[in-house]
Amino acid sequence: MANYAYKSLFNFSKSVFLAMGCPEVEADQATKTLLSADLRGIDSHGVARLKGYVRLWEKGRINATPNIKVVHETPSTAVVDGDAGLGLVVAPFAMKIAMEKAEKVGTGWVAVRNSNHYGIAGYHSLMAVEKDMIGISMTNASPLVSPTFSKERMLGTNPIAVAIPAGTEPHFVGDFATTTAANGKLEILQRKGDPAPQGWLQDKEGLETTNSFGVNEGGALRPLGGSRLHGSHKGYILGSIVDIFSAVLSGANYGPWAPPFVSFIDPVSDPVGEGLGHFFGAMRVDAFRPAEDFKSHMDNWIQRFRNSTPIDPSQPVVIPGDPERKMEAIRMAEGIPLLQPVVDDLKAVGEKFGVEFK
Amino acid sequence: MANYAYKSLFNFSKSVFLAMGCPEVEADQATKTLLSADLRGIDSHGVARLKGYVRLWEKGRINATPNIKVVHETPSTAVVDGDAGLGLVVAPFAMKIAMEKAEKVGTGWVAVRNSNHYGIAGYHSLMAVEKDMIGISMTNASPLVSPTFSKERMLGTNPIAVAIPAGTEPHFVGDFATTTAANGKLEILQRKGDPAPQGWLQDKEGLETTNSFGVNEGGALRPLGGSRLHGSHKGYILGSIVDIFSAVLSGANYGPWAPPFVSFIDPVSDPVGEGLGHFFGAMRVDAFRPAEDFKSHMDNWIQRFRNSTPIDPSQPVVIPGDPERKMEAIRMAEGIPLLQPVVDDLKAVGEKFGVEFK
Repeated sequence: MANYAYKSLFNFSKSVFLAMGCPEVEADQATKTLLSADLRGIDSHGVARLKGYVRLWEKGRINATPNIKVVHETPSTAVVDGDAGLGLVVAPFAMKIAMEKAEKVGTGWVAVRNSNHYGIAGYHSLMAVEKDMIGISMTNASPLVSPTFSKERMLGTNPIAVAIPAGTEPHFVGDFATTTAANGKLEILQRKGDPAPQGWLQDKEGLETTNSFGVNEGGALRPLGGSRLHGSHKGYILGSIVDIFSAVLSGANYGPWAPPFVSFIDPVSDPVGEGLGHFFGAMRVDAFRPAEDFKSHMDNWIQRFRNSTPIDPSQPVVIPGDPERKMEAIRMAEGIPLLQPVVDDLKAVGEKFGVEFK
Repeated sequence: MANYAYKSLFNFSKSVFLAMGCPEVEADQATKTLLSADLRGIDSHGVARLKGYVRLWEKGRINATPNIKVVHETPSTAVVDGDAGLGLVVAPFAMKIAMEKAEKVGTGWVAVRNSNHYGIAGYHSLMAVEKDMIGISMTNASPLVSPTFSKERMLGTNPIAVAIPAGTEPHFVGDFATTTAANGKLEILQRKGDPAPQGWLQDKEGLETTNSFGVNEGGALRPLGGSRLHGSHKGYILGSIVDIFSAVLSGANYGPWAPPFVSFIDPVSDPVGEGLGHFFGAMRVDAFRPAEDFKSHMDNWIQRFRNSTPIDPSQPVVIPGDPERKMEAIRMAEGIPLLQPVVDDLKAVGEKFGVEFK
């Protein structure tokens, strides 16, 4: 495992997007979105996925020069057609529209169709907080999750992110998959050859399994809760809401029709919409109360929760967003660690486009 | 356990609200909201709580003749001050404003302060679907839940409801506490003397316990997920978002400051806002795509999920809202079963106001 400077990963990734044919501004945005995952410690969604985007582009499933546009709108809503562009670019475009609408009428809500994977949910929600807005971001994804009582893969890990501005305290940023555990966590166990905790996944018969390769062998991830007794129907509801807001409202593919991220599995032959879907929201806090009041109460909220009595004094209560913010500071200073297989992949991508990875 | 006709429970409850001094229209609304819980099978939130509302009124903590009003607004948002009125009445008032705003600008979002417990979250979200809108409802509540890593009670069971209209299929209605299990489920175990499943609650030291009286003995409910390994930080994030949207946006009491529902515990002496808070949203589906398109795709979504391959063919996949809808049909026809202690309480309430319970 070697560390790579953010700046050099940025230059490399941007060069690759440029070589794919992305316009300058979009290559820049795609790189910023992608690498925000590495900076925040969500390694599964960062530069390790660059190869995946390239392969989808090679298959003609990603359009490097999309005509991203608003196809329907009201004062507080819009639907964006991503024209099969990179989700990494389509999503910030849509979030900006949500924020412009919030500027005018208090809140803005944008559903997106015909997009692809958009990186980490949190990045887009964070765009809003700098403008004293609450940012909301969600997306559907390749089906890997079974509803409670089912053994069929029907939903993606369908993440939700909510970023809330504070005053002197750092922002509150909740960003989570609606499954018991994200797929990235399973990959870590697989690399180590470790079993998975109960409640994370089920085998192809739908029975709980601790085999960390269970999903690869025809099983599925379980919704947050893990079992009916522990509330997995609530995780299933959450994943469903994300699917419906992202894809049924927008006209994208929902549920088991959602296109797979991996290029070696073709999309379904009977699509119910276009591409993948996202959903974004922006709410001006001063559409509810003066921004200074809101932010000083958020500071109070954060301080009170951070100081709530811990079970173990050596493990204080965590404010959502704190671990990722700390990770970002470390990785900006010390670089981003990449596993050897990721480095090998990036070198191969670089060779394809005549861009040196170093 | 005897069954009581909806009509007679309605007349009784309405007479009690009238005797408390509620105006006719508000007594009617309060009863409708309250009994929707009994009809939908959420017995903990229905007529069994009538005594609780009466006691809060006796303590001067519920105002029977509130001046409920909008104190701030933009085209898509409003803040409502409930003037310490019954949440059962304040909440539908606020939801109507959200729907009026959605009618005009596509969506409407209303934060409420200075309210009380509002019955079941689902009732309010369902108001929207009749108008081809998605309805969203959430509320904070008396602190009974510890954040991950904490042994202090900081959050309520903070429910979220989302109701989504369909075409020929019944609506999708997700309505769930952001804890592993709702308090009402614990009460059932307590009555039977049964232990609680692991992950539902912790003792006063913060350790997992199966003692179903754990909360009464100084412990706490755990957020959805049940433990850090099973994603309880996600349930904690969800409960926090509900708390912040309901109370920090509106100017109500948040976190451990939220006023208790039980009349024998006084509210904190250092409030950070006014009363309890709620948050409502309404989104016109045709603010995104033609309503007929949306509803026919929702029908397809619902049918596909209902028919997804079950693990056990005798237990098909459940569409959120189906169980409560079936229960409502049964209870409308056969009456609502009440436990003897609830009947005794209602008789005592009736005697207090000179209203016969029969």
